[in-house]
Amino acid sequence: MKTRRSFLQKLGLAGAGALVVQSAQAEEDRGRSFMIHQVYFWLKDPQNDMKSFMKGCENLIKIDSIQKAYIGVPAATERREVVDHSFHVSLTVHFKSIEDHNIYQFHEDHTKFVANHEDKWKKVQVYDSKID
Amino acid sequence: MKTRRSFLQKLGLAGAGALVVQSAQAEEDRGRSFMIHQVYFWLKDPQNDMKSFMKGCENLIKIDSIQKAYIGVPAATERREVVDHSFHVSLTVHFKSIEDHNIYQFHEDHTKFVANHEDKWKKVQVYDSKID
Repeated sequence: MKTRRSFLQKLGLAGAGALVVQSAQAEEDRGRSFMIHQVYFWLKDPQNDMKSFMKGCENLIKIDSIQKAYIGVPAATERREVVDHSFHVSLTVHFKSIEDHNIYQFHEDHTKFVANHEDKWKKVQVYDSKID
Repeated sequence: MKTRRSFLQKLGLAGAGALVVQSAQAEEDRGRSFMIHQVYFWLKDPQNDMKSFMKGCENLIKIDSIQKAYIGVPAATERREVVDHSFHVSLTVHFKSIEDHNIYQFHEDHTKFVANHEDKWKKVQVYDSKID
């Protein structure tokens, strides 16, 4: 923390608040907005399909218009009523813009991913956030 | 990278590409796992409470054990059945470990945030993902 604080002091930003402090770490949101496309998948048969599904996700996130992508599984955090640990795979995708998100949505590799894997999931839930 | 590649090899996923390629851009997952604590808030009265709630979030993400944090609002992506645009605020928080997440959960600033703002939300939904 000391280094970051000192860096912010140099920039004259010390005490300017959380968003600035956090932004200093995140190269993608330096002074411009981006979006997070967050997807949660619930599989029908995770025991048998997890490996091929994960591989599908790894191929999916090769799509060029993606800025960053993370493939996740439920973390072993405390069971609390507000936390849903029931999903099997999470896909966190950062795009520089909604246009880049749309390129991804209509990309043939995305279409292929859905065609090849949609039989494996029983539910998919998406949340799209704009980050300023 | 070597550790992750070796982990992927164990899973039979070596050569899968994308995860490695995308991850290479993200400083936080160079060779080690981290977690994403994803929170969605639905406010009772967003018109009146949005500003103070956002300010509360900005204070919240000053907690030291946070690696990165993004405060978001619904992105203007296409309305599709699988996309939930109904939340008012999203909070995406990256932690290096579950221990750092727990420090955050029990931090007095987190307790204060809940005490000061819980009357403003009608629903909160959390998903915790482990990213390897």
